Amino acid sequence: MTTAGTARETITRTGPAAARQHTLRERNLELVARAVYEVPEPLSRAGVAAATGLARATVSTLVDQLVAAGLVRELPAVTGGRAGRPAVPLVPAPRSVVGLGLEVNVDYLGARVLDLTGDVVTDQVVPGSFHDSDPAAVLGRLGALAREVSDGVAAEGMTVAGARLALPGLVDPRTGLLEVAPNLGWSSLEPVPLLGLGDLDVRVANEAKLAALAELAGGSDVAPPDSFIFVSGDVGIGAAIVVDRELFLGERGWNGEIGHVVVDPAGPRCSCGAFGCLEQYAGKEAMMRAVGLPPVAPLDALVAHLAEGAALPDAGRALGSALADFVNLLDVGTIVLGGAYTELLPWLRADVEAVLDDRVLAAPFVDLQVRAAQAGPQAALTGGAREVLRAVLAAPAAWV
Amino acid sequence: MTTAGTARETITRTGPAAARQHTLRERNLELVARAVYEVPEPLSRAGVAAATGLARATVSTLVDQLVAAGLVRELPAVTGGRAGRPAVPLVPAPRSVVGLGLEVNVDYLGARVLDLTGDVVTDQVVPGSFHDSDPAAVLGRLGALAREVSDGVAAEGMTVAGARLALPGLVDPRTGLLEVAPNLGWSSLEPVPLLGLGDLDVRVANEAKLAALAELAGGSDVAPPDSFIFVSGDVGIGAAIVVDRELFLGERGWNGEIGHVVVDPAGPRCSCGAFGCLEQYAGKEAMMRAVGLPPVAPLDALVAHLAEGAALPDAGRALGSALADFVNLLDVGTIVLGGAYTELLPWLRADVEAVLDDRVLAAPFVDLQVRAAQAGPQAALTGGAREVLRAVLAAPAAWV
Repeated sequence: MTTAGTARETITRTGPAAARQHTLRERNLELVARAVYEVPEPLSRAGVAAATGLARATVSTLVDQLVAAGLVRELPAVTGGRAGRPAVPLVPAPRSVVGLGLEVNVDYLGARVLDLTGDVVTDQVVPGSFHDSDPAAVLGRLGALAREVSDGVAAEGMTVAGARLALPGLVDPRTGLLEVAPNLGWSSLEPVPLLGLGDLDVRVANEAKLAALAELAGGSDVAPPDSFIFVSGDVGIGAAIVVDRELFLGERGWNGEIGHVVVDPAGPRCSCGAFGCLEQYAGKEAMMRAVGLPPVAPLDALVAHLAEGAALPDAGRALGSALADFVNLLDVGTIVLGGAYTELLPWLRADVEAVLDDRVLAAPFVDLQVRAAQAGPQAALTGGAREVLRAVLAAPAAWV
Repeated sequence: MTTAGTARETITRTGPAAARQHTLRERNLELVARAVYEVPEPLSRAGVAAATGLARATVSTLVDQLVAAGLVRELPAVTGGRAGRPAVPLVPAPRSVVGLGLEVNVDYLGARVLDLTGDVVTDQVVPGSFHDSDPAAVLGRLGALAREVSDGVAAEGMTVAGARLALPGLVDPRTGLLEVAPNLGWSSLEPVPLLGLGDLDVRVANEAKLAALAELAGGSDVAPPDSFIFVSGDVGIGAAIVVDRELFLGERGWNGEIGHVVVDPAGPRCSCGAFGCLEQYAGKEAMMRAVGLPPVAPLDALVAHLAEGAALPDAGRALGSALADFVNLLDVGTIVLGGAYTELLPWLRADVEAVLDDRVLAAPFVDLQVRAAQAGPQAALTGGAREVLRAVLAAPAAWV
C-alpha cells in the first residue's frame, strides 16, 4: 500500500458510519477487480454485474474508478449479436500499476518489474559473487539498480506499487529482519533501510517461497498441481511447501531448509556450521567442483560439460536422499525443481528417482512426480513482483 | 455410527422436508452436546440454553433425548442463590457409551475402553513379538481380546460405539487398507475383517497419528502447545504433525515417517530395504542391542541398565539428526517424544539437544522445546478410543 493510499484511508475513516460505508465500497471494489482479473474471458460492465451480483449502476461507478486508477483498461467497444449498447470489454491494465521484485542471491543481484497483465516490463540480473559479503555494500548496489529500474518505468508513466526483496535465508516478514543467510554470511540485520529506496513499500521474503508463488501462478503450458514441494537450487538450496495452492509456512515461515538436511554425517562442513548438508553435494558450487569447474563458473559452462559427458551422480543421489526425507516426513507426491535444477534435471533425474524409489516408504503406492519448474530463471523476482500486485488487487480501494 | 443409528437415519429421511427437519434437529443436538461437553463447569438446561442461544423448551427436549441415549448424565439438583426451580447440572455420562481402542504393534497387542468422561474403563496390553508375523493369526488374536473386553463392558450395561485399530505403518482410512507395516512384515491387506468383530464399526489409523491425538486431548498437568511434532518411538518410529491443534496429514495421511529418515547412508539395512534409517539407531531393538540386552527385552530392563550407568549416545545423536531435518523442513518448534522415548528421554535429551543446536538453522532464534509425552503408555489406544467418542459427539442424532 502506498503512502497516498494510506492517507486516503485515514481521511475516509472519520467515524463508524463512514468506516462501514468505506468497508462496503472496498469490498465491492475487490469483487469487481476480482471479476475482471479472474474470469478468463474479458467481461463487459454488464458481465461484471452478472458475475458479482452487484447492481449495474454500482458496477459502472466502480469500474470507472478502477479505470481512472489504472487498475483496469477498457478495450474498444464491440457490438455483439444482442440488442443494446455495444459492450466495452474490461481487462487488466498493461503498463500502468507495476510491482518490483528484488533479489540478492549468492551469485547474482536482480530487479524485475511486472505489470498487472503478468508481463515482464523490465528485468535486470547482474552476476556476481556475494559469499561473505558486506550487506550494506551489496544492498546499496541493489538499491541503485532498483532506483534505475523504477525511474525508467516511472518515466514511461507507470507507478511502482511496492517491492519484495527475496533473500536466501531465514527472514521474518513481520519485522523485516533477516536472521541468517549462511551463504551470504549475513545475520541479524534489517535489509530494507540499506536499499535506500525512501518511501517505497519494500518487504522481505525467503527466496524459495517467492519462487514457489511464481510457479503456482502458472501461465505456462503445464499447470502446477495443487500441492507440491518446490526446491530452488542455487549455491544454497531452499524449498517451499505448497498445500492446496497455498504456501504452508510452519510457525515462522522458516521451513523448507532442505539445503541443511543431513546427507552424510561424515561429509564436508557446510556454511551453516554442520557437516554433510545437502548443499555440500548438490549446491551449485559443489556441482561445479564435481565436474572440475571453478565454483563461480556460470551455469551454462556446467550444462556444456554435462552435454559432453560429465556426470553428477553424487549431487543426484544426495538430492534424492534429502527429497526422500522430505516426502517421508510430509507426504507430498509432486516435487518441482527450480533454480539451477530446472536446467540440470536431465542429468540429475535418474539418480534422484532411483534414491526416491529406494527410500520413500510409500513409493510403491504413489506416483511420485519429479518435474522441472516452469516459472523461468530467477523465479523469486517474478514471484516477488506478483506478490506486490496481488496485494494491490486484494485492496484496490487504496488506489482509487 | 452404529447399524441402529444408520437405520434410524434412513427411516427419518423420507423426503426433503423430513430431511431438512432432521438436519436442524441434528445440528441442535450437536450444539447441546457440545455445550455439555466443552463448557468446563457443569451447565443446567438454562445454562445450555444461554450457551447455545436455543429456546429453553427446545433445549429441554434435546437434553431429555441425550440423557435417554446415555450421552449425558444429570447430577442431583442443586438450589442456587436465585429464585426458581433448582438447577440440574448436566455432565458427560460415565460408563454408558464407550469407545474401543485397538492396536497391533511390534511388541504388544492392546485393547482399551474409554467412556465419555475420558476415564479408562478397561485396558488389556499383551506383550509379544510380531516381527514378520502372520496377519490373520495376530489380528485374530487381537479380535479375541477385543471381544473379551467388549463383552465385559456390555455385561455392565455399556454400549461400544465403535473401534479404531492403530497400526505401525501406512494405512488408508478411506479404504481400510494397510499398504505396508515394515516391522510387522505386513503389506497390502485389509485388516478389519481379520479381527472378526462382526458388525462393530472398526476403522484403521496410523499409530503415531492416534497417539498424537491422545496427546492433544491433554488432561495432564502440562497443556500441549497448539503446534508440535509428535514422535512415537517403539521398534519402529512414527511421527505426527499437529498444526493449530489439528493433525496435518499431507496428501494421504502418510507423512511423519521419521523412522526412515537418513541418519547415515553407510549405516545398517532397515526393514524398509534402505540403509541407515533412524530406526536402525534409535528404534527400541537397536537401543536394546546398544546396551547389550536382547532385542525383545522389556523397556524396564533398558531403563534399569541406563540407571546403572549405560548410555545411548548413538540413539540420541541419531534421533537429534532426524529431528533436526524435520525442524529444518517444517519449522515447528516443539517436539513431543512419546512411546518408549517418554521414559528414555532423561538419557537421550543431552545428545538430542546438542545435535538440534548444531543442525537446525533457526536454532539460535527460536526456543526449541523437547518434551516427554503426557498421554501415558500405548497412547494410540487412548487416542483411538477418544476418536470413536469424538465421532459420536459430532453426530449425536444417530444415538437418540
